[in-house]
Amino acid sequence: MTHVNQRNLKNALADYLPLPADTEPHLKAALEHVLGNPGSLVRPEIVGKMFAAYALPDAHATELGIALEYFHTASLLFDDLPCMDDAQQRRGEPCTHLQFGEAHAILAALALINKAYALTWRAIAGCAQTGCAQTGCAQTRCEQNRQQTAMAYLDQYLGVGGLLNGQSMDLNYASLSHDQQTTERIAMGKTVSLIRLTLVLPGILGGASAAELQLLERVAICWGLSYQIVDDLKDVLHTPAESGKTGSRDASLGRPNIALTVGVPNAVERLTRLIDIGDRMLERVVRLRPGIAFLQQLRSQLNSEADDIIANACEKSVRGAA
Amino acid sequence: MTHVNQRNLKNALADYLPLPADTEPHLKAALEHVLGNPGSLVRPEIVGKMFAAYALPDAHATELGIALEYFHTASLLFDDLPCMDDAQQRRGEPCTHLQFGEAHAILAALALINKAYALTWRAIAGCAQTGCAQTGCAQTRCEQNRQQTAMAYLDQYLGVGGLLNGQSMDLNYASLSHDQQTTERIAMGKTVSLIRLTLVLPGILGGASAAELQLLERVAICWGLSYQIVDDLKDVLHTPAESGKTGSRDASLGRPNIALTVGVPNAVERLTRLIDIGDRMLERVVRLRPGIAFLQQLRSQLNSEADDIIANACEKSVRGAA
Repeated sequence: MTHVNQRNLKNALADYLPLPADTEPHLKAALEHVLGNPGSLVRPEIVGKMFAAYALPDAHATELGIALEYFHTASLLFDDLPCMDDAQQRRGEPCTHLQFGEAHAILAALALINKAYALTWRAIAGCAQTGCAQTGCAQTRCEQNRQQTAMAYLDQYLGVGGLLNGQSMDLNYASLSHDQQTTERIAMGKTVSLIRLTLVLPGILGGASAAELQLLERVAICWGLSYQIVDDLKDVLHTPAESGKTGSRDASLGRPNIALTVGVPNAVERLTRLIDIGDRMLERVVRLRPGIAFLQQLRSQLNSEADDIIANACEKSVRGAA
Repeated sequence: MTHVNQRNLKNALADYLPLPADTEPHLKAALEHVLGNPGSLVRPEIVGKMFAAYALPDAHATELGIALEYFHTASLLFDDLPCMDDAQQRRGEPCTHLQFGEAHAILAALALINKAYALTWRAIAGCAQTGCAQTGCAQTRCEQNRQQTAMAYLDQYLGVGGLLNGQSMDLNYASLSHDQQTTERIAMGKTVSLIRLTLVLPGILGGASAAELQLLERVAICWGLSYQIVDDLKDVLHTPAESGKTGSRDASLGRPNIALTVGVPNAVERLTRLIDIGDRMLERVVRLRPGIAFLQQLRSQLNSEADDIIANACEKSVRGAA
């Protein structure tokens, strides 16, 4: 992904949610702040390349990629609220609700969600048409099938069966058993859901086979759980200055954290195992669809963070033993 | 609307948002409470009859009607939060956030929104197909047009151009001029948006002409503003026991209320004028589409509440003058 594309995505992030001239100033300021301080934009990057691999149109890739980024950003705005994680910092700055008030953070999040659904809808409707025209299948029926499958997938993983249940389990962790299974169920809801949508929706829209979709799902699960373990290890091993957000909070707040549940060495072992399974699944799906080999390079980039944290953990454990 | 249909709608309200067995118990309890305590269900009732008038399928009417009820209910859950209206009662009971905590009220609202988009999507996709098949128009293109128009309409009135802006203006009313124009702009966002979707979306999906859609829009605006004035008058004239929710709060909290801004007699005059314009618009649209004459009966039912409040206002003013 070149810098030009990154800049295009940053522009798209603001452009796809135009604010009418008479937008109430506090809501406008909150939204401009949120849209002007993007994260890594890794979701739209991946969607862009997945769409290219499935020969789906760029314009719809941007729509879906930005939509997933909006869903993600909205989930952060909600998670940071005092009644949820009560976070103080996000992306190295005071959280949106601290700068603009809780009500405006909530309304900004709802504006992101509203637009995300509209964009997803456009992308799904547009892609189903293109995809079917390309493969020359019996158009209308197949188009409807792809649309319905994609819509149901979105519904499932953003709703009570996915993201929202993960967040609710997270908040009620005190009432659940503190073990690996529970922390991973929470991560499946909170973290895996959006990665799953990022990898699998393009496959559905591009007419991937059931076997291909299943492999993409498994890659998403391995990556999502790995990412969560890295985050958990960071919380335990790092200071706020290093991670750019409020750190070392899980232990003090009794929040789910696999490194706290099974210990740092076991968490590191689980992480290396998940990375390994993910690699093997990815290898198999790349054999079916060579165009998504870019995910192997991306995996190396993403997992350099995992390598750092593993090295950090080992170093600390050596120091602790010395 | 018969009792059987009302019961069907109540069942549909719960059935269309099935909760997986492993739904986190607090989230489950909050959602079951919300779905088990419906409002008047006037939106799905109207959508059902509008769909019949446009010969669109019942199944999709229920989907869209329930979706609009979910959007409405979610907006109430958010509006009642401490950081918004800080309400204590809703539908004669303590608010959801008071019974289940703020976080679960928010997650329940998001679950409703997520499912509402999924249902709207199904209804719009399904109706566009049916509508075009019936009118025998050049199917694929026209179907896509209807879908896109309906989707854009939903996006506009639920987002920063509609509902969300209304709520933000409401919250920041202290910074705005306290006049009729401002209170009506707020009502256009907060109250008219969902009534607009209820009346106009079926028209769009049923292939109504531009003139017909414009008349439906005007009816929606007159009804929405009227409804808001009735609500404002209730707040000024009634006690909590009578209105079934926290009453007489607008004055103490400095919230927008047209009866406070222009006085009760002027608010009553504006109300009677809006009802009158609405009646004339409705008469014209019924001439174009006789099937929606049911709206005239519904108007009588809905406005008996307005008549009561007008009578109440007159009585109090007579008593005041005596």
